[in-house]
Amino acid sequence: MLGAIAGDREIGALLDDGADIAAILEFERALSAGQAAAGIVPQSAARDIARACDRYTPDLPAIGRAMMRDGVAVPELLRQLRAGLSESSARHLHRGATSQDAIDTSMAMRMRDATKLLLARMQAAAGELTRLERRLGASALASRTRLKVALPGLAADRIARWRRMLESRALEAKKRPGGWLALQYGGPAGRPARSDRKRQALAADLARRLGLPMAGADWQTDRGRVADFAGWLSDLTGAFGKIGQDIALMAQNGIDEIVLKDAGGSSAMPHKRNPARAEILVALARYNATLLSAIHHGLVHEFERSGAAWTLEWLVLPNMCLTAGAATRIGGELIGSIEKIGDGAGRK
Amino acid sequence: MLGAIAGDREIGALLDDGADIAAILEFERALSAGQAAAGIVPQSAARDIARACDRYTPDLPAIGRAMMRDGVAVPELLRQLRAGLSESSARHLHRGATSQDAIDTSMAMRMRDATKLLLARMQAAAGELTRLERRLGASALASRTRLKVALPGLAADRIARWRRMLESRALEAKKRPGGWLALQYGGPAGRPARSDRKRQALAADLARRLGLPMAGADWQTDRGRVADFAGWLSDLTGAFGKIGQDIALMAQNGIDEIVLKDAGGSSAMPHKRNPARAEILVALARYNATLLSAIHHGLVHEFERSGAAWTLEWLVLPNMCLTAGAATRIGGELIGSIEKIGDGAGRK
Amino acid sequence: MLGAIAGDREIGALLDDGADIAAILEFERALSAGQAAAGIVPQSAARDIARACDRYTPDLPAIGRAMMRDGVAVPELLRQLRAGLSESSARHLHRGATSQDAIDTSMAMRMRDATKLLLARMQAAAGELTRLERRLGASALASRTRLKVALPGLAADRIARWRRMLESRALEAKKRPGGWLALQYGGPAGRPARSDRKRQALAADLARRLGLPMAGADWQTDRGRVADFAGWLSDLTGAFGKIGQDIALMAQNGIDEIVLKDAGGSSAMPHKRNPARAEILVALARYNATLLSAIHHGLVHEFERSGAAWTLEWLVLPNMCLTAGAATRIGGELIGSIEKIGDGAGRK
Amino acid sequence: MLGAIAGDREIGALLDDGADIAAILEFERALSAGQAAAGIVPQSAARDIARACDRYTPDLPAIGRAMMRDGVAVPELLRQLRAGLSESSARHLHRGATSQDAIDTSMAMRMRDATKLLLARMQAAAGELTRLERRLGASALASRTRLKVALPGLAADRIARWRRMLESRALEAKKRPGGWLALQYGGPAGRPARSDRKRQALAADLARRLGLPMAGADWQTDRGRVADFAGWLSDLTGAFGKIGQDIALMAQNGIDEIVLKDAGGSSAMPHKRNPARAEILVALARYNATLLSAIHHGLVHEFERSGAAWTLEWLVLPNMCLTAGAATRIGGELIGSIEKIGDGAGRK
Repeated sequence: MLGAIAGDREIGALLDDGADIAAILEFERALSAGQAAAGIVPQSAARDIARACDRYTPDLPAIGRAMMRDGVAVPELLRQLRAGLSESSARHLHRGATSQDAIDTSMAMRMRDATKLLLARMQAAAGELTRLERRLGASALASRTRLKVALPGLAADRIARWRRMLESRALEAKKRPGGWLALQYGGPAGRPARSDRKRQALAADLARRLGLPMAGADWQTDRGRVADFAGWLSDLTGAFGKIGQDIALMAQNGIDEIVLKDAGGSSAMPHKRNPARAEILVALARYNATLLSAIHHGLVHEFERSGAAWTLEWLVLPNMCLTAGAATRIGGELIGSIEKIGDGAGRK
Repeated sequence: MLGAIAGDREIGALLDDGADIAAILEFERALSAGQAAAGIVPQSAARDIARACDRYTPDLPAIGRAMMRDGVAVPELLRQLRAGLSESSARHLHRGATSQDAIDTSMAMRMRDATKLLLARMQAAAGELTRLERRLGASALASRTRLKVALPGLAADRIARWRRMLESRALEAKKRPGGWLALQYGGPAGRPARSDRKRQALAADLARRLGLPMAGADWQTDRGRVADFAGWLSDLTGAFGKIGQDIALMAQNGIDEIVLKDAGGSSAMPHKRNPARAEILVALARYNATLLSAIHHGLVHEFERSGAAWTLEWLVLPNMCLTAGAATRIGGELIGSIEKIGDGAGRK
Repeated sequence: MLGAIAGDREIGALLDDGADIAAILEFERALSAGQAAAGIVPQSAARDIARACDRYTPDLPAIGRAMMRDGVAVPELLRQLRAGLSESSARHLHRGATSQDAIDTSMAMRMRDATKLLLARMQAAAGELTRLERRLGASALASRTRLKVALPGLAADRIARWRRMLESRALEAKKRPGGWLALQYGGPAGRPARSDRKRQALAADLARRLGLPMAGADWQTDRGRVADFAGWLSDLTGAFGKIGQDIALMAQNGIDEIVLKDAGGSSAMPHKRNPARAEILVALARYNATLLSAIHHGLVHEFERSGAAWTLEWLVLPNMCLTAGAATRIGGELIGSIEKIGDGAGRK
Repeated sequence: MLGAIAGDREIGALLDDGADIAAILEFERALSAGQAAAGIVPQSAARDIARACDRYTPDLPAIGRAMMRDGVAVPELLRQLRAGLSESSARHLHRGATSQDAIDTSMAMRMRDATKLLLARMQAAAGELTRLERRLGASALASRTRLKVALPGLAADRIARWRRMLESRALEAKKRPGGWLALQYGGPAGRPARSDRKRQALAADLARRLGLPMAGADWQTDRGRVADFAGWLSDLTGAFGKIGQDIALMAQNGIDEIVLKDAGGSSAMPHKRNPARAEILVALARYNATLLSAIHHGLVHEFERSGAAWTLEWLVLPNMCLTAGAATRIGGELIGSIEKIGDGAGRK
């Protein structure tokens, strides 16, 4: 039932085990293809690996058990994948890579795709606000500061403020067509930026194949990108939270500055119309504002890989993305449900 | 796959939609039974209601849709339940109650049951630590302050500190056999404590039927109980986090103060044994430490019911309980996997 | 200027360097007095130590420099104190204790005193609400759920809910006359509970002398007490935040359910009356709700003393106490400024 | 004493009342100068205002009292300033502006200046790491993942990772020479972006005069810029936290991979050398990671100005900036204190 208010089917589909495994397989396939193109791995091995990835059906319970023991899914996943490969091809799988490369890159690809969905929804909501501004913007609507009436104004003023918040967040996403995160390809112990020209070329090729930005060096222990992306997720959820807070307040009896179609009911007072979506947006904003903190705690990353800090990211980042998804979905519905706005909108 | 490290089957079963609906039905059944015993509701209506509850199969998609519209599941759930009742009985269902009464009481019952599970696991882990203290406590183990060796000591000293942390948290739970939360029975707009002797008697009877503590007044807008319970959940997860942090540090090459059986592997270095469970405990502790903040934001509860603050609780409290569940489960496994402890334990 | 809204003179005086040093000296004095009474330390040394403590004037810049180097103030403070003692007395100063004993005990004493102030203010505010309930409680005031008018009611209903929140938090403090924290007396590497009967007797004597609760064992690495106390601070700040949020909303033009004397002005619209105190209470509540999270991160305490986790407490706990102080102070003023309440209170 | 570890004199000087008032006066002066240049305000009035600003000595106690009543300092500050102006000049002071314009712009100027200091320190620390890499980089230093030895490597690898973290954060600051925040000039109720060409020209002139970026529209209620800046502050504090965590762990007895000069002492064990600065960096990182959450809660900003959300920013943003200041200061000292690094550095 909570899924209805805090979940998101489309974003959720990018975050489940199937999508994660598919993206890891795409990484492994692209890695050996790139290595074959560079003459590091035989073409036949790369073909075998691609075929094995296509045919692979994960034994999820075994991966779950291994997850508990190893802290990561990749060693067991590779073990299963290798079972479908000849010995000579098997040793070329995951070559020069480590679990973190596969897992971070899978996250990067899926977060990029989630960002596209979020961007499209924000743009749709901003478009709807533009139409609303045209349609209803001329209604009188006093500005309120510190919750008190400040000056006479128009509905268009408040609507434009809402729209600009969505536009500025959308702009940030448009600047990053490959997403906030980047290819991860550091190998077992990470590599400094300048270490190895060949490896850099391979990484550039891999980034192109996967449609991901290329980082100057691996970011295995520098989680600033994750923090930035999480900040954007919380920032956009906060923008919808502000819109929701305004609308919930505008719907108050006595204020009556907005009329929503399809406002919700109560078990004890069936006549009462509650601005449920508006309040849910506030809750989602506060949820992501809280979760962001954990991502920043994850910056304190011991040595060349912190199991603790990295696991904390896994617990939080998908949740934040889903919450942003719910905010864009419900925010779009709420904006679409505005029937009247401005002073006297709700007066009988 | 994340479920393997952050989930908990037993606790999870108390938190799903089925368990929530079952507890809401138990509330409605007990409410009309109590009202019938008090002569407020006809015995036949109470019997009809009990039967309808027994037979009821929720239409979950319809509840999901209503959730989005109303912000709560109960109005639609009651609508479905009333469809199986005669008109004369239907008007006695949910009498004098509001959605929040049913939902908060359902949460209270399930959190009480989750607490019992957590308590049992903490006691088991403390027992295991007692045995460990006896078995391995005599090994030399220097104390470390600020990560530096401080004074000579025994493994028993550190093990006893771990045990006492679990015992003190367990003691808090034992003091509250009915759990931290209480019966909620405030009605549509809440009732001051002294308002109504009859209602108080009814509430006392209802609390007895449901095995819940009785609050001095309704706590619809005073979420201090929720904050206290969430604090305990984070506190116990933090205790396991401290144990996990110690063990992960003790397992470092060069420190080598602990040997764990079944430590995990790496995709690139199969010989390496990682203290995965220990690190997961740290991540779980930091997750709950972060989430707790959202529960306290929920204390700022507008008027007689805040949709925003209440929804925020729903997003967070079950997560916190699940995370505490994972910590007790994984903590128990980790403690059970200690083979050697003390200076030189891991030296070849 | 921020001090005016977020500070508190009385609580602040318990948190400054002078108060900290005075409490540390009280600990050292009581420690050697107790040890002298137990025959462990010569009476003359205890008298010398008491006299040196009385006469001691701290060289604060030197302590500041040492703080940076050592991470704690106590080693340098003791060095300065020893300079005023004969060599034979000097070696009995701080005997069997470690920096953390002195620092945690100082914090415990000052937090106990702060709690007394907070309690007195909460009781005064609750008393004022009782008077308000009598004086203005009969005004009509509809309840509002999800910000919408729910049912007719009286001002007394809402006022009583506010009062009960303060009373329940006050009750928690009254249950703990010596405060949440306890004497810390673990020595350099901490001591398990059962280790040493003599030391336990000494600790009990020390707790009596200092007016502090006695913990079952040292709590050097188990920061659950700190977490519990911080939870209470946030919980009470949250209670005032809820009252502030309600009042700020009641003061909205169009709602007009409350009249405050001495509401604030605006630089651009001098006629506008802003419910500044009410909004400040909301900000303080959200500040403490956020800070609490850091205290719970501090539960992950490495080994027998974590400099990182302990320093984090120092950065946060005094702030939380000060914020709770500001909330009780401003909350009292706000409640005292209510002139009218209830439907139509603010209608011209 | 806490100031020694969590404070920063240079950054602190930008955050105190004097600096705030000076920046507000600079805003008022530039505003009337710009308005005079545009022919909106008489040149003589602008000159009078500039002179009054030069001569003005704030009555801080009166501002403190007004702060409590009005929630902001500006109305009282302007009242005091107007007392030194002729009536004809006085009405041109603060023309077309509101308190928030002055306060946010003051914050923007001071945060820009703080950013310059932080940037210079990060660059100095990165430079020191470059020198360290050259000087000590050839020492053997095994990489560690999940706290366990992974692969052989060089000290240069770890040092380079530290350096790159600082460089990437510095780069973000270099991209924004005027800082993250922007001129605020929205007037009493804010203005939509396209409303008024004349006002836009005035704003552009004002931004030039004050050396601040120009936002597309006022950002009175869209606090995304504040959130982005706070994210950067936490991100850089986190980078130093990671360095501190690594160094504290490297200094462990048994690991012994680093030697620091001037490591701190203990009250009970004078021979013990504690990596106090390293641990303080971890605490500062976790403090800012926590505080960031409050800034994101401030995104939920009611209507055209939220006293609650705005006050929350004031409580948190200066603290975050000071904490980042302490991290850059202490981080620089810690890096400068590294004497040996790499495997065996600390072995006797």
